[in-house]
Amino acid sequence: MAHTEIPYKIYLSENEIPRYWYNVRADMKNKPAPLLNPQTGEKLKQQDLEHIFCSELVKQELDNDTPQVEIPQEIRDFYKMYRPSPTVRAYCLEKALDTPAHIYYKFEGNNTSGSHKLNSAIAQAFYAKKQGLKGLATETGAGQWGTALSMSCAYLGLDCRVYMVKVSYEQKPARKEVMRTYGATVIPSPSNTTEIGIKINKEHPGTTGSLGCAISEAVDFVSHHDGYRYALGSVLNQVMLHQSIIGLEAKSALDKYSVVPDVIIGCAGGGSNLGGLIAPFMGEKIRGEKDYRIIAVEPASCPSFTRGVYAYDFCDTGRVCPLAKMYTLGSQFIPSANHAGGLRFHGMSPVLSQLYHDGLMEAVSVEQTKVFEAAELFCRTEGILPAPESSHAIRCAIDEALKCKETGEEKNILFGLTGTGYFDLTAYQKFNDGEMNDIIPTDEDIARSVALLPKVQ
Amino acid sequence: MAHTEIPYKIYLSENEIPRYWYNVRADMKNKPAPLLNPQTGEKLKQQDLEHIFCSELVKQELDNDTPQVEIPQEIRDFYKMYRPSPTVRAYCLEKALDTPAHIYYKFEGNNTSGSHKLNSAIAQAFYAKKQGLKGLATETGAGQWGTALSMSCAYLGLDCRVYMVKVSYEQKPARKEVMRTYGATVIPSPSNTTEIGIKINKEHPGTTGSLGCAISEAVDFVSHHDGYRYALGSVLNQVMLHQSIIGLEAKSALDKYSVVPDVIIGCAGGGSNLGGLIAPFMGEKIRGEKDYRIIAVEPASCPSFTRGVYAYDFCDTGRVCPLAKMYTLGSQFIPSANHAGGLRFHGMSPVLSQLYHDGLMEAVSVEQTKVFEAAELFCRTEGILPAPESSHAIRCAIDEALKCKETGEEKNILFGLTGTGYFDLTAYQKFNDGEMNDIIPTDEDIARSVALLPKVQ
Repeated sequence: MAHTEIPYKIYLSENEIPRYWYNVRADMKNKPAPLLNPQTGEKLKQQDLEHIFCSELVKQELDNDTPQVEIPQEIRDFYKMYRPSPTVRAYCLEKALDTPAHIYYKFEGNNTSGSHKLNSAIAQAFYAKKQGLKGLATETGAGQWGTALSMSCAYLGLDCRVYMVKVSYEQKPARKEVMRTYGATVIPSPSNTTEIGIKINKEHPGTTGSLGCAISEAVDFVSHHDGYRYALGSVLNQVMLHQSIIGLEAKSALDKYSVVPDVIIGCAGGGSNLGGLIAPFMGEKIRGEKDYRIIAVEPASCPSFTRGVYAYDFCDTGRVCPLAKMYTLGSQFIPSANHAGGLRFHGMSPVLSQLYHDGLMEAVSVEQTKVFEAAELFCRTEGILPAPESSHAIRCAIDEALKCKETGEEKNILFGLTGTGYFDLTAYQKFNDGEMNDIIPTDEDIARSVALLPKVQ
Repeated sequence: MAHTEIPYKIYLSENEIPRYWYNVRADMKNKPAPLLNPQTGEKLKQQDLEHIFCSELVKQELDNDTPQVEIPQEIRDFYKMYRPSPTVRAYCLEKALDTPAHIYYKFEGNNTSGSHKLNSAIAQAFYAKKQGLKGLATETGAGQWGTALSMSCAYLGLDCRVYMVKVSYEQKPARKEVMRTYGATVIPSPSNTTEIGIKINKEHPGTTGSLGCAISEAVDFVSHHDGYRYALGSVLNQVMLHQSIIGLEAKSALDKYSVVPDVIIGCAGGGSNLGGLIAPFMGEKIRGEKDYRIIAVEPASCPSFTRGVYAYDFCDTGRVCPLAKMYTLGSQFIPSANHAGGLRFHGMSPVLSQLYHDGLMEAVSVEQTKVFEAAELFCRTEGILPAPESSHAIRCAIDEALKCKETGEEKNILFGLTGTGYFDLTAYQKFNDGEMNDIIPTDEDIARSVALLPKVQ
């Protein structure tokens, strides 16, 4: 029946690429809490943020009211190089699971950055170029974001400076090399190129760095260099806005075949993919038009939603960034070894945090060995080697499909397949060799870093 | 004009995936020379080859008459996971080159094997499964073919044994790990698991292997193991047949917009991509319906078309394989260091060899530093990090487009972008660091190995 009707891959045509991003904040009854100045505790305004981000992006960051934000034609032209991305019916996975559930995934990995990150990178680079800036600085952990920004800057002729968490820089020479091929300058962080890097190196000799620390360095760099601004690949409201294209396309594709998802699943690190995937569905849910079960999946080693607190915190280790109200494990939290580098951030998008706080979505945490079991099954059946981050969503989707097998329910499950795992083969090797562990923080670990939260609440 | 009419990516719909492969041999006036028994010099027949390949594939190998070979539904279902692949208009590259030429490329890299190799791998695995075999053995150099066969075997539940050229096994742990994730057994070659491997290791202690040597080992393995057959990713007539899907799709896509390519360009190692891409166009050319300029691009370090001889030769170093008449540098030729592992084979498809010999196509050779310059420009403009192999075609396409800039001609250029370079970042690093060399064989080098050709001619 459905097998002959719904293709394996639903592709929209080029002129069906959305013309507007959707800003879910406009529909939220409780808006995400504003960013605060860490010194004064005061709400940050347009002019306070313009030395960090370019003006148009600050406007987007602070705009809780405009539901539809037009996507400039130049960005849509870039999107045409790798979008619309396919919404895929996982026929082969369904068969392997012998489930009555229908599983769909929105695949964002078919571009050289290897993930959905390019959707926001090109937007941030475009507005920087439009403002006449020289370049952008950013951080990268797993490397997808750094690659995405390098690609976007190369395309527009902007300088790109990437602070790469030192341990990734050393363990992932290939990732570094992609960025260099796109003309970016890649610096292992903490480095001696910024005051904050020098300070961190002095206080923690031999440190291999962290995402929070690399953020501090990138922000520090732009604050000392004219013509540069900072770009961030997740957490921010503007990023959720740009990433809404994922959900808009997925929804259009499913609508073509009158498929309504019962469950929507996404992995959650800073929230960029999840926020984007669920945006239009969440809008309908808030407006009371439809009901969807929405599930955020996070690693058990870095469980901000499921074990963190909802409070104001720094987005970076060096504490140079504004304060955001979010689910957080504390900016000084160091997640134990986990191969999903993109899910090791201590905090979570303020938008998603508010939605979760308001009971509009659920969250689960999963252990990485279980995640890689799901990844292996997925790659053997669906033919795509998934990124460890994306595999968190696969794990949860499989679990939901197996529940349907027990109950006999023919649910529609949609999940976000954020990217590919071509640069994560060391993790796969550990799994293939049976050498992968699950290390989960104790309550004391979390209490210790939460105790260091800033006092402004 | 065209800009608004022709989309960036032309996607066929799922039910437009071809139902038949096209066998160009049926239209060739001079058929490719038959495979010979190296001992007796006699023409090999169905039963002689059935201990190496499964029966249906031998039939395809020897069939010079049937123009259309039906693609089994099971293979078409697998194709649906990653096909139809896009035919892309390289608007951004055209702009960067400021050329009046229209450049199109057929992109085969959007699957986990990273290349077009999957098109034939699934066909070979399917027929093996249908014949009730236990598994397949093969060789791999750069790794694309081994990955493709591993994926196909995992999908069908077949055992897969990959002899990987030792130097690649050591330098590309990630490639090896993808294959392992797909359940394959990966053995560095020459190994001590086959007689021929033991012999080669004894004669050349410390050797890092070669593709020709890995082929010998895989063939040796199947000849000693019931229920196994050998699979080869290029050169063979059957592979050209399966790969015709590339050209058939590309032609359908261009036909939709009434675009007729003036020049068709593909990189050539064993010829699988080139043979597939040009198949339907070559058919029209042979039948006198249309004229196309067709160009094979090979590395200057391994120039079988441009500097080899057209003669019977072994396909492997160990000389256990049948003899094929082809353009060859001699089976004992060892190409100098070149980062396009997929283009280091000493010979060339007998089909393409005959077509080239008959003046139906041209060939050029290019140096690898020039190839990587083209790769860098391409990835910065088109956003796809190309495989070094594919970048040979990019180089030639750019050169042709630049000629159009001089002459003002608005030619349509179509080239094959066979795959992505995610596992080739060591090569990119050498290029980025200015440490890449071009080592080209001397006439004496080639004469020396050509002198060792078998006497059966």
